[in-house]
Amino acid sequence: MRELRVDLGERSYPIRIGEGLLGQAGQELLEAGLSVKSPLLVVSDDSVAPLYLEPLLEQLRSAGFRAASCVVPAGESSKSLARFEEIMTRALEEGLDRKSAIVALGGGVVGDLAGYAAASYMRGIRFVQMPTTILAHDSSVGGKVAVNHPMAKNIIGAFHQPALVLYDLDTLKTLPRREVSAGLAEVVKHGLIRDAAFVDWCVRHADRLLSLDPEALGYALFKGCEVKAAVVSADETEQDLRAILNLGHTIGHALEAVAGYGELLHGEAISIGMIGSALLGVQLGAPQEVYLRTREALGKAGLPVSLPEHFDTDRIMEAMMHDKKFGEGKMVFVVPTAIGEVEIRSDIREQWVRDIVERLKREASWP
Amino acid sequence: MRELRVDLGERSYPIRIGEGLLGQAGQELLEAGLSVKSPLLVVSDDSVAPLYLEPLLEQLRSAGFRAASCVVPAGESSKSLARFEEIMTRALEEGLDRKSAIVALGGGVVGDLAGYAAASYMRGIRFVQMPTTILAHDSSVGGKVAVNHPMAKNIIGAFHQPALVLYDLDTLKTLPRREVSAGLAEVVKHGLIRDAAFVDWCVRHADRLLSLDPEALGYALFKGCEVKAAVVSADETEQDLRAILNLGHTIGHALEAVAGYGELLHGEAISIGMIGSALLGVQLGAPQEVYLRTREALGKAGLPVSLPEHFDTDRIMEAMMHDKKFGEGKMVFVVPTAIGEVEIRSDIREQWVRDIVERLKREASWP
Ligand SMILES: NC(=O)c1ccc[n+]([C@@H]2O[C@H](COP(=O)([O-])OP(=O)(O)OC[C@H]3O[C@@H](n4cnc5c(N)ncnc54)[C@H](O)[C@@H]3O)[C@@H](O)[C@H]2O)c1
Ligand SMILES: NC(=O)c1ccc[n+]([C@@H]2O[C@H](COP(=O)([O-])OP(=O)(O)OC[C@H]3O[C@@H](n4cnc5c(N)ncnc54)[C@H](O)[C@@H]3O)[C@@H](O)[C@H]2O)c1
Ligand SMILES: [Zn+2]
Ligand SMILES: [Zn+2]
Repeated sequence: MRELRVDLGERSYPIRIGEGLLGQAGQELLEAGLSVKSPLLVVSDDSVAPLYLEPLLEQLRSAGFRAASCVVPAGESSKSLARFEEIMTRALEEGLDRKSAIVALGGGVVGDLAGYAAASYMRGIRFVQMPTTILAHDSSVGGKVAVNHPMAKNIIGAFHQPALVLYDLDTLKTLPRREVSAGLAEVVKHGLIRDAAFVDWCVRHADRLLSLDPEALGYALFKGCEVKAAVVSADETEQDLRAILNLGHTIGHALEAVAGYGELLHGEAISIGMIGSALLGVQLGAPQEVYLRTREALGKAGLPVSLPEHFDTDRIMEAMMHDKKFGEGKMVFVVPTAIGEVEIRSDIREQWVRDIVERLKREASWP
Repeated sequence: MRELRVDLGERSYPIRIGEGLLGQAGQELLEAGLSVKSPLLVVSDDSVAPLYLEPLLEQLRSAGFRAASCVVPAGESSKSLARFEEIMTRALEEGLDRKSAIVALGGGVVGDLAGYAAASYMRGIRFVQMPTTILAHDSSVGGKVAVNHPMAKNIIGAFHQPALVLYDLDTLKTLPRREVSAGLAEVVKHGLIRDAAFVDWCVRHADRLLSLDPEALGYALFKGCEVKAAVVSADETEQDLRAILNLGHTIGHALEAVAGYGELLHGEAISIGMIGSALLGVQLGAPQEVYLRTREALGKAGLPVSLPEHFDTDRIMEAMMHDKKFGEGKMVFVVPTAIGEVEIRSDIREQWVRDIVERLKREASWP
């Protein structure tokens, strides 16, 4: 078992990563200070629930908790105000009070949705994350929770730190292969922005990661969380530094917007986005190595490193202009200067980005 | 012009109370640090908007701001997720960014709704309150913002402090007489929990308050805000002390729930609730004077001090059991020990409360 503390003063919390954690969840919640007097609500989705919900509820009940559940359809479209309202209704029906917690059992979708519900119910109750995807190592650190608006992703939300993150590696075994790679995109991203040695490690151990070897996976999730936690602790409400976590996301979000749900997973989109950022970095003077190594790390993790031809460049550029990262009309990009180092640039010309989007289509094809 | 600072460290903000403030709103927003580069969204309701919205928008525009508006129907039913979503849509359409602000022009309903929108849009943007009711002196201090769920009031919300509160006394002139009295209920409440001299002042100057004399009204709102600010500063997230602000609210909320919207205004319900609390106080050993003075202060402000006969005691008791103030199943009551002093009691027997509800029906009738 690995443990990491996210250091945020009063709102600090532990992330525990290991095998078999679901089987001791009740005990963990008690240790985190939750009281059996106040009911819990477990939120999950209908892919994860059939696999892990009943064992979790039983575990919690055997520890003395009253635990109810709310299951939403799997997929990004559940990050909606309609589902949010449904959780509120369930919370009220089950009599959750100010000392209750909402437990998110699932990936980033469930985490963001349940987290926003916990942030809002009675103006904020406790929140426990039990991530079941690799990608959710990212969403489980930092306290950003949100739902989508039909016009924009993650636009309705809050900063709400969990009381505890319980990462049971066993639950990852059922994760579809494509989701494994997508999750690794954020793991690699955390290396790329802050930790060159970890990028090397990822390249060397990509096979073990893809086969979900618990030892390798535990280490990678720990390192990924560690980088994110360090950045978040230094800048909780995203004033400046935290923006480096958006490496690959300016292009990536635009790709997701243009692709329509399903064609590109978030991790896949930001993989292509990170290749774009690396190209931009090289263009701005970083060594060619930055591009090659980025490509190698992402490619070995089973991720796309080029953009399918049919993506329309104009639409991508338009989508980028709508991205909330363009504060006060300025384009802001996270650009690598070396492996493990990035800078934030607001002097990127639209034409450069346009050229890079075109270039991404000519990269060696989708793996 | 009177000014008060709500002292909350980094989140401190000024409340400015005076005549003609709407006519200088643009300047005030600039001084509060808002930038004309980021658009504003003014939220109002369809009773207030015809009176004050256009002049405000013009004022803001003449100061260089881009200012759009979103008008919701007047009344408590606008504190809903549906209206919240509407504001999100407008904010997106108008391109509000992280440096934008949402301005609430209206009473507590608009303030709570717009405030929760500001708390949630992009995980929190700035918020300016321009209260147009007396009651909203209460809601403009403390940062509690929320919408209702069909099953419970104020259950979906956040703590989000405004950047500025601009209280233009001129806008109060159009307030219906019944709303004036209802607002004074919270003013008197602030005296009852912390400031006996101010209760005396309220009794002596009730007529001036009811006739909206600007000097008297400015002073009363200042004192009301001052008491609330002191309590809130000491306990921002309602851990303990802040609970004293709920004087009259445990019974009051139950009455509102049973009455159905419209029959009782919030201020009227808590007026009756405060009489109930005073009776409880006397029963627990406070001098009879506490009851008599509470009754005098509320009665002179044109408020009901008795419960209409047709209210069903069983339903009131039931509604109280659902109130969120019953943490972990305990009934919590704020009870006066003297004028200007209260204590929080969790040892109140259901039967005592039931007796007091009955007794409230036998009080001298509705004024
Ligand atoms: N809050 C943040 O800081 C943050 C950071 C990154 C991403 N996110 C958000 O996270 C979301 C993406 O997260 P995600 O990739 O985990 O998506 P997800 O939650 O939709 O999970 C992906 C898919 O895998 C399924 N699944 C999850 N766990 C499984 C398991 N153990 N076995 C089998 N199937 C399983 C899910 O049902 C879903 O179909 C996005 O909405 C994104 O905005 C948030
Ligand atoms: N956030 C808090 O701390 C807090 C504290 C107390 C109350 N509240 C909330 O405040 C709400 C009640 O506030 P309220 O009493 O101001 O209600 P309100 O906003 O509904 O206003 C009352 C009525 O007066 C009208 N009105 C408002 N200003 C007017 C004006 N200047 N001229 C003519 N008509 C005007 C409104 O259109 C409405 O019909 C409740 O929802 C309550 O939950 C919140
Ligand atoms: Zn991401
Ligand atoms: Zn009140």
